[in-house]
Amino acid sequence: MFGIFDSGVGGLSVVTLLKKRFTEAGFIYLGDTAHFPYGDKSKESIQDYAYKNTRFLLNQGATIIIIACHTASALAADYLRKEFQGIPIYDVITPTVKEVLRLNLDRIGVIGTRATIQSGIYEKKINSCAIISQPCPLLVSLIEEGWVDRPETFSILKHYLAPLKKQEAEGLILSCTHYSLIRKQIEKVLGLQIKLIDPAKILVDSLTFNNDQLIGKQNKKEEFWVTDFPLRFQELSKIFLGKEIIARNVEQ
Amino acid sequence: MFGIFDSGVGGLSVVTLLKKRFTEAGFIYLGDTAHFPYGDKSKESIQDYAYKNTRFLLNQGATIIIIACHTASALAADYLRKEFQGIPIYDVITPTVKEVLRLNLDRIGVIGTRATIQSGIYEKKINSCAIISQPCPLLVSLIEEGWVDRPETFSILKHYLAPLKKQEAEGLILSCTHYSLIRKQIEKVLGLQIKLIDPAKILVDSLTFNNDQLIGKQNKKEEFWVTDFPLRFQELSKIFLGKEIIARNVEQ
Repeated sequence: MFGIFDSGVGGLSVVTLLKKRFTEAGFIYLGDTAHFPYGDKSKESIQDYAYKNTRFLLNQGATIIIIACHTASALAADYLRKEFQGIPIYDVITPTVKEVLRLNLDRIGVIGTRATIQSGIYEKKINSCAIISQPCPLLVSLIEEGWVDRPETFSILKHYLAPLKKQEAEGLILSCTHYSLIRKQIEKVLGLQIKLIDPAKILVDSLTFNNDQLIGKQNKKEEFWVTDFPLRFQELSKIFLGKEIIARNVEQ
Repeated sequence: MFGIFDSGVGGLSVVTLLKKRFTEAGFIYLGDTAHFPYGDKSKESIQDYAYKNTRFLLNQGATIIIIACHTASALAADYLRKEFQGIPIYDVITPTVKEVLRLNLDRIGVIGTRATIQSGIYEKKINSCAIISQPCPLLVSLIEEGWVDRPETFSILKHYLAPLKKQEAEGLILSCTHYSLIRKQIEKVLGLQIKLIDPAKILVDSLTFNNDQLIGKQNKKEEFWVTDFPLRFQELSKIFLGKEIIARNVEQ
């Protein structure tokens, strides 16, 4: 059974993709909404939260852990693999790095939260092309407010994406679960000649299980947990999962 | 000795005002940065965080509690007074309500986080004038990014403040510690005929102690604690306190 965690509700978009491919699998999702957003928190705290999230999911019966959050993938994936040896732990960055290497580009852009970008994870793992990194700390708030199509958002996007255009990036990694929701707006600002790379899709495509493997049919449950109920939880779950969900609360 | 808490570093502006007036007092400040921002969290979580913050400050020797955070003032002040009977607990909203009643206006605006506005605290406590409430969830992020003077911020401010202008508010309560940092920009958008009301200043002016009363000279210490070190902690403390501070970490 899959155990997926994210700092908030953004990772629900990964659940949507997983459900499409693994129709017989069970899912437990944990949104660590009490600590949302991870993007401005310290590495130590993010590792601590990621540890507690993983332990919770395993206690609930998960056998495969999916880190849907880019900030946690950048700062805590290796730490979790060391702490939970023997448990298959997948993050959104590792398969994306493989895909970028396969694409064999000269210059690639990365946008993400401040913590993801400051981790320098892509610079550390990719030596074969130039990387243009841009933290976009305002985008998550704008997207959660539903301000995806407002002129202010376009103006902020233009500001953030200007260095990528100037340096002629050939591709752009959307290194935050939220950014796929403003994919069209990013394309509008950048132009279609820049290939957008969505790590959630790459991660799900990269998984090599099939429906019968590893995932017992007896465990086909679907559960959503959060560490706090944000005020706009129902609306946000609709945005990211396409439907309102019933979530339970766990304090940790 | 004063014990001041806020969801983050914004409450440091209250410390600045307190220090100016109570030059002989000791201060312990706690920024609950692990749970920042409170503005989108649930009432239950905010009460739980406020309880832990207060307990920590009392354990560290505080004798007077100041809730610098508006969201916690709106949702947890009464709860804290019930839980910590006999401890003087001051919040930023109670004296502001008194000041508004004294001003005797017909229409007053309130801007704040989503949680502060949804609490309806001003509507509950003020019956003598019409209240025009406007949640401004994007402002905290913009201010913390230092985007105070950018055209996008003016454009977002215009959008938020339009209903207040249209309904001809005579005054505006800045019900978030961050908003005093964009006071000038708000005045530019609103025009100077609307009186801006800053609860931090009203709170500090309303305290009736003097330097010798209640605050033992033996306790004249100054301590800053945070529940996480945000990535931009040093820059943010500079913005709100006017200098970089050395803070200690407490996990709770």
